[in-house]
Amino acid sequence: MNKIKAGIINVTGYAGVELARILWQHPQVDLVAVTGRSAAGKKLGEVFPHLECTGLTITAELEGKVDVAFSAMTHKASAEAVIPLMKKGIRVVDMSADFRLKDPARYPEWYDFTHPAPELLKTAVYGLPELHRSQIEAANLVANPGCYPSSAILALAPLVKHDLVEADLIVDSKSGISGAGRTLTLPTHFSEASDNVRAYNLSGHRHQPEILQELDNLCPSGSVSVTFVPHTVPMTRGILSTCYARAKSGKLTGGKEELDKIFSDYYRKEPFTRMVQQPPETKHTWGSNLCLLYPTMHEKTGRVIVISCIDNLVKGAAGQAIQNMNIMFGFPETAGLEALPIYP
Amino acid sequence: MNKIKAGIINVTGYAGVELARILWQHPQVDLVAVTGRSAAGKKLGEVFPHLECTGLTITAELEGKVDVAFSAMTHKASAEAVIPLMKKGIRVVDMSADFRLKDPARYPEWYDFTHPAPELLKTAVYGLPELHRSQIEAANLVANPGCYPSSAILALAPLVKHDLVEADLIVDSKSGISGAGRTLTLPTHFSEASDNVRAYNLSGHRHQPEILQELDNLCPSGSVSVTFVPHTVPMTRGILSTCYARAKSGKLTGGKEELDKIFSDYYRKEPFTRMVQQPPETKHTWGSNLCLLYPTMHEKTGRVIVISCIDNLVKGAAGQAIQNMNIMFGFPETAGLEALPIYP
Amino acid sequence: MNKIKAGIINVTGYAGVELARILWQHPQVDLVAVTGRSAAGKKLGEVFPHLECTGLTITAELEGKVDVAFSAMTHKASAEAVIPLMKKGIRVVDMSADFRLKDPARYPEWYDFTHPAPELLKTAVYGLPELHRSQIEAANLVANPGCYPSSAILALAPLVKHDLVEADLIVDSKSGISGAGRTLTLPTHFSEASDNVRAYNLSGHRHQPEILQELDNLCPSGSVSVTFVPHTVPMTRGILSTCYARAKSGKLTGGKEELDKIFSDYYRKEPFTRMVQQPPETKHTWGSNLCLLYPTMHEKTGRVIVISCIDNLVKGAAGQAIQNMNIMFGFPETAGLEALPIYP
Amino acid sequence: MNKIKAGIINVTGYAGVELARILWQHPQVDLVAVTGRSAAGKKLGEVFPHLECTGLTITAELEGKVDVAFSAMTHKASAEAVIPLMKKGIRVVDMSADFRLKDPARYPEWYDFTHPAPELLKTAVYGLPELHRSQIEAANLVANPGCYPSSAILALAPLVKHDLVEADLIVDSKSGISGAGRTLTLPTHFSEASDNVRAYNLSGHRHQPEILQELDNLCPSGSVSVTFVPHTVPMTRGILSTCYARAKSGKLTGGKEELDKIFSDYYRKEPFTRMVQQPPETKHTWGSNLCLLYPTMHEKTGRVIVISCIDNLVKGAAGQAIQNMNIMFGFPETAGLEALPIYP
Repeated sequence: MNKIKAGIINVTGYAGVELARILWQHPQVDLVAVTGRSAAGKKLGEVFPHLECTGLTITAELEGKVDVAFSAMTHKASAEAVIPLMKKGIRVVDMSADFRLKDPARYPEWYDFTHPAPELLKTAVYGLPELHRSQIEAANLVANPGCYPSSAILALAPLVKHDLVEADLIVDSKSGISGAGRTLTLPTHFSEASDNVRAYNLSGHRHQPEILQELDNLCPSGSVSVTFVPHTVPMTRGILSTCYARAKSGKLTGGKEELDKIFSDYYRKEPFTRMVQQPPETKHTWGSNLCLLYPTMHEKTGRVIVISCIDNLVKGAAGQAIQNMNIMFGFPETAGLEALPIYP
Repeated sequence: MNKIKAGIINVTGYAGVELARILWQHPQVDLVAVTGRSAAGKKLGEVFPHLECTGLTITAELEGKVDVAFSAMTHKASAEAVIPLMKKGIRVVDMSADFRLKDPARYPEWYDFTHPAPELLKTAVYGLPELHRSQIEAANLVANPGCYPSSAILALAPLVKHDLVEADLIVDSKSGISGAGRTLTLPTHFSEASDNVRAYNLSGHRHQPEILQELDNLCPSGSVSVTFVPHTVPMTRGILSTCYARAKSGKLTGGKEELDKIFSDYYRKEPFTRMVQQPPETKHTWGSNLCLLYPTMHEKTGRVIVISCIDNLVKGAAGQAIQNMNIMFGFPETAGLEALPIYP
Repeated sequence: MNKIKAGIINVTGYAGVELARILWQHPQVDLVAVTGRSAAGKKLGEVFPHLECTGLTITAELEGKVDVAFSAMTHKASAEAVIPLMKKGIRVVDMSADFRLKDPARYPEWYDFTHPAPELLKTAVYGLPELHRSQIEAANLVANPGCYPSSAILALAPLVKHDLVEADLIVDSKSGISGAGRTLTLPTHFSEASDNVRAYNLSGHRHQPEILQELDNLCPSGSVSVTFVPHTVPMTRGILSTCYARAKSGKLTGGKEELDKIFSDYYRKEPFTRMVQQPPETKHTWGSNLCLLYPTMHEKTGRVIVISCIDNLVKGAAGQAIQNMNIMFGFPETAGLEALPIYP
Repeated sequence: MNKIKAGIINVTGYAGVELARILWQHPQVDLVAVTGRSAAGKKLGEVFPHLECTGLTITAELEGKVDVAFSAMTHKASAEAVIPLMKKGIRVVDMSADFRLKDPARYPEWYDFTHPAPELLKTAVYGLPELHRSQIEAANLVANPGCYPSSAILALAPLVKHDLVEADLIVDSKSGISGAGRTLTLPTHFSEASDNVRAYNLSGHRHQPEILQELDNLCPSGSVSVTFVPHTVPMTRGILSTCYARAKSGKLTGGKEELDKIFSDYYRKEPFTRMVQQPPETKHTWGSNLCLLYPTMHEKTGRVIVISCIDNLVKGAAGQAIQNMNIMFGFPETAGLEALPIYP
């Protein structure tokens, strides 16, 4: 089998290391380079013992020729790393937010920097395959979605696209702690995070504009309102988003049964979204690229509720990035991503 | 100091054992009797080693004379246990749902039984001191609120009472696993519950009518709508409720500042509700009777959000029951409940 | 590729479901039958949503023709299930203890039943491939080792085999809660098990005779003494065993360096044992069939310490069973077991 | 009641904040000063919301007059803070290791610094009340024991003191993560620590010499050998130590019954050590100053095993410090420490 060569920029965070794990086992990929400035010179297996068998050494910069690069840098630094790669003609999947937002004005507003390559925002594709598959096929630069947006957009897209709900949406998300990354912080210190639930970024989380951009695009009227509130819960992996909407007058009179049909139709051909018959649990996605979806209608109030579950490091990050790569290179979309969830 | 004698019916569940822990240390109470059918004859310290020092023996039935009894039986069985106590003139705090709902018709609807003593529903007082303190003082039967309702009603009461928000409310609650009790079930089995978040009872949780009853009572127009969705998260104790409302037209134009003032005024004299300046975390209530409250307004959408945190076994159960007892017997309201939260 | 047909008896426990997950993805196996009495008639995906894609239905009894059967029944019941399979000429990997102990007298002593087929104990092979590979190749009945013994025997085998340590050994094991299975019990109830460490079975755990039998066999003098103390810790998967021994006079004078060489030599050709340079952590084995080994010598006391880590449901149960099957059927030993650990 | 004034140096770590929690509720103490350099000027309630009600402000240096100071600084810095306090005549309980070891040579060996006040090592008292109560009464400087040593020494003291076991001891300890403090590190990062067990400091943990010093002192022959191996497990609080010893020839022939009597006699008058009838669990000590003890004899090997459980932040740190203070000032030894454990 003809394999492509792949590199990971900043392998030392959780998205990076999860990319390495999956790419190493991918049948059509040779993972040939992994970078990480602070750990340059170390074996990957020294930093992450579970990847000892790769034999890879971490380098300061991407060395050698690669067909595709994954940037797992933080925002701003990622754009700076990606721009020269684009010039060299390397196809890129960027895990950061740096190419997700179409409007350059959003960057100073939400991320405190002026975008260094606004022209790339026009050609970059928002890498949610369920929404933009055909553009991803041809893209040289894919902006991999945030973890919360992946769970929220997939939960709400069928409703918004078909104009079934009022524009006023609520997304209440519960995330495992790995979503905050490997950088040490007090809220992710074990003794503070265990046995604890907290809401955060109530004045606005950076994933808010991304959710809004994609739902606005889907919405026939062009504009929705989203109240997004993220929470952390004491587990390593997983996001469960509980999404609340109100049916438009005269719509969704068929209740849960109609909702089930709408979602099933919408995601009929998707390999990684799965409708479930019972409210889903994050643990049922552990280690897999699945997004579990459960739409329902609150009996007493008629409010539409959609629950989605993903593994934030797989469908919410590395797995989706590899799904995007598969699409870009014409591989089977599920290549390297077939592993069943591990339970319990 | 003159002490009253107290008994606990069904000490072997988590509400019961938490009652025992707090009552044992209460300066004005002698805990003289604890019952539990399956464990009758055993020492309390055999079942709960942390209470070995009490020296108490579990009996099948409440023995001896008590001034106050706490029933920690499950619904239906609790009513059956409480009725004869009332006849004997013993004052009762009932931890079950059996006397919380004023309308007897709610019992067959939500709890699958016909209420055996509907006349008691008229005199029983819903034991949320922040709402019904003066009635509790005189009550012979106090219906201790459910854990979720305690967190939800305290979060929404100031807004509903002052007619500041639309009637259409959402309560998204995240609970520790102890809320499900000590009865063995698959969802509370460690390997299934750890590293997991799930929503449940989406077609209607039994705490729904209780929340509705109390908010309806507070609401000038007499009626609100509540979409209540409970979730479990992998921790032992704590409930965090994220409550969503929409300001009525022309109301709450002062934003968070106005919200803070409204809440501070509303709960000015309360010993156990505390306004906090940062979004609260359940871990900050561990082992204490506090309810932490954080009202705010979502910047982008103008939606009102109130977050509340409690320890589900204390303010959500045993602590509140003892707060009610203190009020009933004219003790200082904080007696036995002064312990600071334990952190981390 | 020519595939064999496999069946799982009692798929509804954690060993059973983990067998199903791995076998389903095994390149040389068709998983054609899964049984479970209480869940008979249900889809496997109803009981375990992460296996929905298998489409399998749980049956009461093993139906159709299989080349290999895995029994994940509890002891005694497993022997009763295995005996008729043996008569039909089906090769069996038994996950229970029923064929692990060579001496029939051990069964009434440790498991409270008289063995129904003592003649099978003679031909059954103890399925620790690192010790008995060549016998496993030819075996019709493989007794898959217990989870604790897998971790303990692999940690101590090189020392005992080479007669390097005194006969007086200590194994202090720490296990995740899934080791106790899916049956509901109070010690595995989330609120009791979380934030808790406990020792148990101090008067003798059933894995004790198994550890002893295998180490006795390895020992040139034919007899060792093992003090085995199991503990549970609040995590789902993983066993870490800390093993203590005392070097024989004049032996192991080369310290850690010599220990490293002995272990490396002993396990040179093994695909699943891995010597590590830092004390291992259970999380580095999550979901994989690896056994991580770290031998060292306590600087101040000269005592030999060996630490081993496994995933109790993989190398400690289902993974090792499939490793045994691979050996029995001449497949590559790592077939179906190549997945890297998932971290974090 | 006549109260003493107390101050805490470095309130911002977990030992410091736990001291604050308990001292604030102590009937004979006014907590008047809390220091913390990085947080100087902040309200204690800003850093630790559960202590908001104290109204205390963190200062850079200890201000005002105190009768007793608790130093919760790290080693070396603590000695530097304590020396001037001693000169001022303030009685001190030092939580660090700086005055625990009698031999000044141990400091460069284990802690990498030359002790600045070796003369104080002669008068400082090792603050394990069960061993040194009468000296503590008169002490001006008490060195509060380490968390692991508290659990290990209490488990082994009766055996060593009465010369019942061979000198060759093993202590296998399992600790919650809070024992590593509030300083951010990778091993205490939630995603790395959760679902994980690891051994650490295998080449020698700093608590080793402390355990040895105290057991040597107790031992009639003056010298024991201790192999101490610490582990972390994914819980916030608690230490369980499993201690292994071998009975001397002809000793302890009475088995568990004799062991029970020896321990009961040895700790007869102690308020905080408790013999238990079942193997103890750390969760049964949560938030309390208890040390649970369970001595037994391994049936098959005759090895003596003693299991001890403490809350590492209470009996292993702040609670024991306050117990020491109570003894120093002639208060009831249990003052401020009567709270029952919180379970579950």
